[in-house]
Amino acid sequence: MKIAIVGYGNLGKGAERAAQNAAGIECIGIFSRRENIRSESGVPIYPVSRLFEGNEEADVLLLCGGSFSDLPKQTAFLAKRYNVIDTFDDHENAFRHFCSADRASRAFRKTALVSCGWDPGLFSIAKLFGEEILPNGRTYVFWGKGVSQGHSQAIKKIDGVKRAAAYTVFDERAYADVIAGKMPELTKYASHRRECFVVVEEGADRARIAQEIKSIPHYFQGYETSVGFISEADFEKDHASFPHGGKAIRCGQTPSGSQFSELSLRLSSNPEFTGAILVAYARAVKRLSEEGRFGAYTVLDIPPSYLCDKDREKAIKAYI
Amino acid sequence: MKIAIVGYGNLGKGAERAAQNAAGIECIGIFSRRENIRSESGVPIYPVSRLFEGNEEADVLLLCGGSFSDLPKQTAFLAKRYNVIDTFDDHENAFRHFCSADRASRAFRKTALVSCGWDPGLFSIAKLFGEEILPNGRTYVFWGKGVSQGHSQAIKKIDGVKRAAAYTVFDERAYADVIAGKMPELTKYASHRRECFVVVEEGADRARIAQEIKSIPHYFQGYETSVGFISEADFEKDHASFPHGGKAIRCGQTPSGSQFSELSLRLSSNPEFTGAILVAYARAVKRLSEEGRFGAYTVLDIPPSYLCDKDREKAIKAYI
Repeated sequence: MKIAIVGYGNLGKGAERAAQNAAGIECIGIFSRRENIRSESGVPIYPVSRLFEGNEEADVLLLCGGSFSDLPKQTAFLAKRYNVIDTFDDHENAFRHFCSADRASRAFRKTALVSCGWDPGLFSIAKLFGEEILPNGRTYVFWGKGVSQGHSQAIKKIDGVKRAAAYTVFDERAYADVIAGKMPELTKYASHRRECFVVVEEGADRARIAQEIKSIPHYFQGYETSVGFISEADFEKDHASFPHGGKAIRCGQTPSGSQFSELSLRLSSNPEFTGAILVAYARAVKRLSEEGRFGAYTVLDIPPSYLCDKDREKAIKAYI
Repeated sequence: MKIAIVGYGNLGKGAERAAQNAAGIECIGIFSRRENIRSESGVPIYPVSRLFEGNEEADVLLLCGGSFSDLPKQTAFLAKRYNVIDTFDDHENAFRHFCSADRASRAFRKTALVSCGWDPGLFSIAKLFGEEILPNGRTYVFWGKGVSQGHSQAIKKIDGVKRAAAYTVFDERAYADVIAGKMPELTKYASHRRECFVVVEEGADRARIAQEIKSIPHYFQGYETSVGFISEADFEKDHASFPHGGKAIRCGQTPSGSQFSELSLRLSSNPEFTGAILVAYARAVKRLSEEGRFGAYTVLDIPPSYLCDKDREKAIKAYI
């Protein structure tokens, strides 16, 4: 099958690397707003505007732009022309985004998978299993320590910012309380903080930038947020890789006691892992589309076996 | 929806307790070979033979017998009359069991979900995600420390055995090596051992029983296995609860380094957790059956959202 990548930032590069390793998947092109760049793998790079006609050969487009300003417009626009997958990760607006992708793709008999990745994505599945299997209990999600792509990108949109890395760090004591079965009441705001490292343009107003960062709704507002301004050299040295991780935990009560389920990720490269998830789900989107199942989907709707390139016998023998 | 439970051992009781807590699910009966027993919840208990006519009102039967001698016959037999879920857990024979359930249920327009639970089951899904997302890497599964129901049941079938608890214990050093990213080559035989505690009938031949246990294929053969003979009083004191747990780990390599995914379960009651999984999947089986999707399925085939009693908007808002 043929995929194409839209957006050639960190996530786009992660998806490109994953596609090179995925059985039966060929990346036929990368579509970028930037000009005069070359791809790592030698795949041709085209201007995004080439997608507007809907004539490219890709079975599925992987939309690797940011949730803050790219995907809210891009997903619905491209979902009228192609099968698409995006990583829209603003939880509070996920249903609205789903509905807009659903209207667009359904009307044009295309299939759109939105909010794919690990959170939302694999963690969404883990939360569903936890709560549906253990209805009496509490769900906890811890993120970090790691660079949040969406959050870093949101900072980069601010006037005067050259580079930015936003780390999410969880409170180790809160995690220890959860694991000990204390069932604490936690909000994500109280159990996490954000650490931002920012390189600014010469003469930029640092106080304004710090204030703008701290007031971005959903992303920073409500969290303990620190903003440090550093040189480009220090940024390159300390903040140019993209580790991340997190834990989705269900602590459920049944008559005999506590049942714990924990999905834990420890990633040396968030964009490479997320890119690999998109590539695996591309198989699922192609299959849904071939089955005539148009409109928008989330990972909750997709049978795990749709990610395989194995037949049923091989999948059962490998995984059951 | 209406479910019924077949088999009233530990797992059957776990499923009964889970059904009492599950939204929109009513347990209408428990079917047992034993006579003159009462259920915990007051649900009526009937002889299994009542199921032979196929006239009961249950939307789905939860088959709570053992994989060793009950399910190989029972699943295909009952799948001709009802929608069923079983926990067949002999990995080596899982595909054969799937095929037999598939033939039976498909011919009679019923839906069968086989090998449900946490392993196989949730761990199967975790393994699939790990390997399909990160094709370069290794998968590790550690079980324990905990009582393996299927293994205990296999021991109980041996002549002269009154009660038995088979613990699976994993090698902590092997786990530490995996987590450290050493990518060791491990077999499940080398990284686990079995500890069995057995109460025997008066005058039983202990040497023969120990020998028979150690030579049960798939379950004990090939593992370092210890067998201890203890009094009924000691058994009741130390081995009457059913804790378990385990970890399904993928350590994958991408160009930037290692990506770890770990699903970890810590269960104070394996039968209550497994019973709760069966009850949640009963919603999925009813829905597949209503969609006219007959034949056998595994957890790999089922969209996570089919476990919900939430509509799409509520599920997206809760989990994405």
